[in-house]
Amino acid sequence: MKNSNSPATGYHLIAELHGCPKELLEKVDILKEILMGSAKDAGFDIVNDAFYQFEPVGATGVVVLSASHISAHTWPEFNYVALDIYSCGGAERAKKAFDLCVKRFKSKKFEVKEVLRFR
Amino acid sequence: MKNSNSPATGYHLIAELHGCPKELLEKVDILKEILMGSAKDAGFDIVNDAFYQFEPVGATGVVVLSASHISAHTWPEFNYVALDIYSCGGAERAKKAFDLCVKRFKSKKFEVKEVLRFR
Repeated sequence: MKNSNSPATGYHLIAELHGCPKELLEKVDILKEILMGSAKDAGFDIVNDAFYQFEPVGATGVVVLSASHISAHTWPEFNYVALDIYSCGGAERAKKAFDLCVKRFKSKKFEVKEVLRFR
Repeated sequence: MKNSNSPATGYHLIAELHGCPKELLEKVDILKEILMGSAKDAGFDIVNDAFYQFEPVGATGVVVLSASHISAHTWPEFNYVALDIYSCGGAERAKKAFDLCVKRFKSKKFEVKEVLRFR
């Protein structure tokens, strides 16, 4: 339960990335490259993944980490990505993965919420 | 962006399920059965999935939906599941899937946050 004596056991970034070029959001291969690459480059250990291509465009997917997950759902028609980065391995890698995703999706404007999770 | 003229395009439940019997949290097969079954029974269309078994116990996984995703990470030693249900297909199915997960994980106490997401 959430209280001051109980440290957070998870750090979850909930982000809306706006202004992303639609050509980065249309195909699942690019989404996979961005998410897997950002997870790896942030130092996360990837244990599984699942992606899906919508027709004609749009993609969705999740990278399963030993320290929780990164998910993204794209709406190329709105230049928008709904991104979640949930780390039970500390905030630092989550923030790094977030920065990498923002950069690689070329988001011009984003909103992000930090949610602390408690077992 | 979030404003009163822009309806939410996603409904995200962030839940901490406490008091779950540890035997339901130890093995990935049970986790998969609960998540896939709850997604399906709530009326979601499952397009992919990815799960992982931690050794000796503990499991993690995500069900990718045509309407976003359901993820869960278990900590059997704390009788705890970190559950996310994110639906871009309305709140009703998300709430139904949540109720099914609570029941199937046999959670005795839970906390849940509703997060509205805006493209």
